[in-house]
Amino acid sequence: MTDGNRQVVFASRPSGWVGEENFSLHSAAIPEPGPGEMLVRNIYMSVDPYMRGMMVDRPSYAAPLRPGDVLSCRVVGQVVASNNPDYGAGDFVFGMLRWEEYSIAKGDEDLRKVDPDLAPLSWNLGVLGAPGLTAWVGMMELGRPKAGEQVFVSAASGAVGQVAGQLARLRGCRVVGSAGSDDKVAFIRRECGYDDGFNYRRAASFETALASHCPDGIDVYFDNVGGTMLDAVLLQANDHARLIECGMISQYNLQQPDGIHNLALFARKRLTMRGFIVRDHYELLPKYLSDMAAWLKSGEVKYREDMVRGLEQAPAAFIRMLKGENFGKQVVQIADDPTEGS
Amino acid sequence: MTDGNRQVVFASRPSGWVGEENFSLHSAAIPEPGPGEMLVRNIYMSVDPYMRGMMVDRPSYAAPLRPGDVLSCRVVGQVVASNNPDYGAGDFVFGMLRWEEYSIAKGDEDLRKVDPDLAPLSWNLGVLGAPGLTAWVGMMELGRPKAGEQVFVSAASGAVGQVAGQLARLRGCRVVGSAGSDDKVAFIRRECGYDDGFNYRRAASFETALASHCPDGIDVYFDNVGGTMLDAVLLQANDHARLIECGMISQYNLQQPDGIHNLALFARKRLTMRGFIVRDHYELLPKYLSDMAAWLKSGEVKYREDMVRGLEQAPAAFIRMLKGENFGKQVVQIADDPTEGS
Repeated sequence: MTDGNRQVVFASRPSGWVGEENFSLHSAAIPEPGPGEMLVRNIYMSVDPYMRGMMVDRPSYAAPLRPGDVLSCRVVGQVVASNNPDYGAGDFVFGMLRWEEYSIAKGDEDLRKVDPDLAPLSWNLGVLGAPGLTAWVGMMELGRPKAGEQVFVSAASGAVGQVAGQLARLRGCRVVGSAGSDDKVAFIRRECGYDDGFNYRRAASFETALASHCPDGIDVYFDNVGGTMLDAVLLQANDHARLIECGMISQYNLQQPDGIHNLALFARKRLTMRGFIVRDHYELLPKYLSDMAAWLKSGEVKYREDMVRGLEQAPAAFIRMLKGENFGKQVVQIADDPTEGS
Repeated sequence: MTDGNRQVVFASRPSGWVGEENFSLHSAAIPEPGPGEMLVRNIYMSVDPYMRGMMVDRPSYAAPLRPGDVLSCRVVGQVVASNNPDYGAGDFVFGMLRWEEYSIAKGDEDLRKVDPDLAPLSWNLGVLGAPGLTAWVGMMELGRPKAGEQVFVSAASGAVGQVAGQLARLRGCRVVGSAGSDDKVAFIRRECGYDDGFNYRRAASFETALASHCPDGIDVYFDNVGGTMLDAVLLQANDHARLIECGMISQYNLQQPDGIHNLALFARKRLTMRGFIVRDHYELLPKYLSDMAAWLKSGEVKYREDMVRGLEQAPAAFIRMLKGENFGKQVVQIADDPTEGS
């Protein structure tokens, strides 16, 4: 039994901005799979905004982390040894495993086999996984945009935003996005087919930016950021607009969240705001994957990842994602991908 | 033609709190009805929170007032002279008329005949009118409380709140209300059958008051006040709670509305917030009136008015209603009611 399994441990609770000091790198023995279990070599892991909520000591939809815990994450890996008759060595799998090089999978943590011929393995952490389904549920099931309607997406080049905007475009809407750099705005316009976009970091005010880029108002807002952008959207919203609350990444590291001042417009404009979490909607995944795989194959939907290499880089990758410094879905590659270049 | 028609005119736009100086009392000639029109002697008029929104120079669902305008309001009156074949002298009518002793009605301003034997005439401005239908639409059509659910109503003794809470009680919910005096809390508990209530003016904090009075959380919030009470409700809301935005009376006279800080709970708790205005739902009025008239007759629903006498008292009555100093639906009696005491 070697000491060859590096792990990232949640070392301490952040107050305000999470930093690398809140994580520590450990080495442990590579575990042996028990009856019905398998050993998985983790190849790609996902860092996602929801993890910030687990670092706070209060109820969340995910159980709070305790210092000393190895963090959990979605992983694509390869089975090394299996005591489970449904999986064999060499199988590629997706599951909710941990920030480490080797994980024990029981076969019940949302585990499923991954077809390496369908798409790059890592896409199962993004456009063909929970972030993609999140975009689908929020935009199509809750936002329900109609052809010709005005749609605005914040964090529009992110894991969820880039998919959400393209779904609205396929529906025949006029789609506008905000993102944190000129390059990201160029990406959503040129690659993702957004009709317009702006760099929120260079906007004199969100109100004037929205008035200028959404001159016909906003019928559906896919909110990934919350805060003052949401307040500005309320001003620009059309009557009967739907505000889909997917996330509020601008708020997660603030000690005191921004105050939202324009909610008095709710009655007058007959607004609807709906929050959701993707876990409630997993039954839609097969239908979603089938549609999305076809769109990716035909090129109707584009997808961009931001890949970082090395488990030890995971905390930094998580933090830069929260700061919006990633460009596309943030993924960490932990080990060589045997399908790469094939 | 005598100069015998006293009118209340919108004299100037308020900034911050509206005051009596924003109104002026005029006298004009009693008008002559033209072809198809009728002259109505106004008996009761309604002052309502939405009127504050019309005093601001920005788009609203009601057209903004201009200084010099005679204010509009819902009225119950009696036809004095009619050139309209559908109405005769002596008919009691309800309509959107004006803050004055005599109005010209064209027969198209939501005018309808009122049956003086069904209920006191003035109730057509409250429980048998727009405020009652507002409560019905918000609670039953949008909030959709299920038996056994936890319902919280703010401004719970007001024109809308007292009806909203009783509708939820009839549905089999546990109903809690907040109001601005101990007498009002006693009224909603003893008369309206609320299960619990509290005087928000004496609450150390809204958060602790809600934690204490709504120990099983909140599934439906019927919001009449907005502001910091809404922020506290977000903390106490159960998963999948519905927040019905009927009005935000605590905010209408503020130069800078309160900041709401707890919207990040929207996704995690899968909340839905819906704003509405009753005008979109007038097709439900006949059904509502039929049900509510029966409940009032059987005593299953109670109704309380706060009656002020004299057109010249209308501005003061409007302002005290905005300040929450009324107790029950605020109505102004302009002229003798020939049905009174009958």
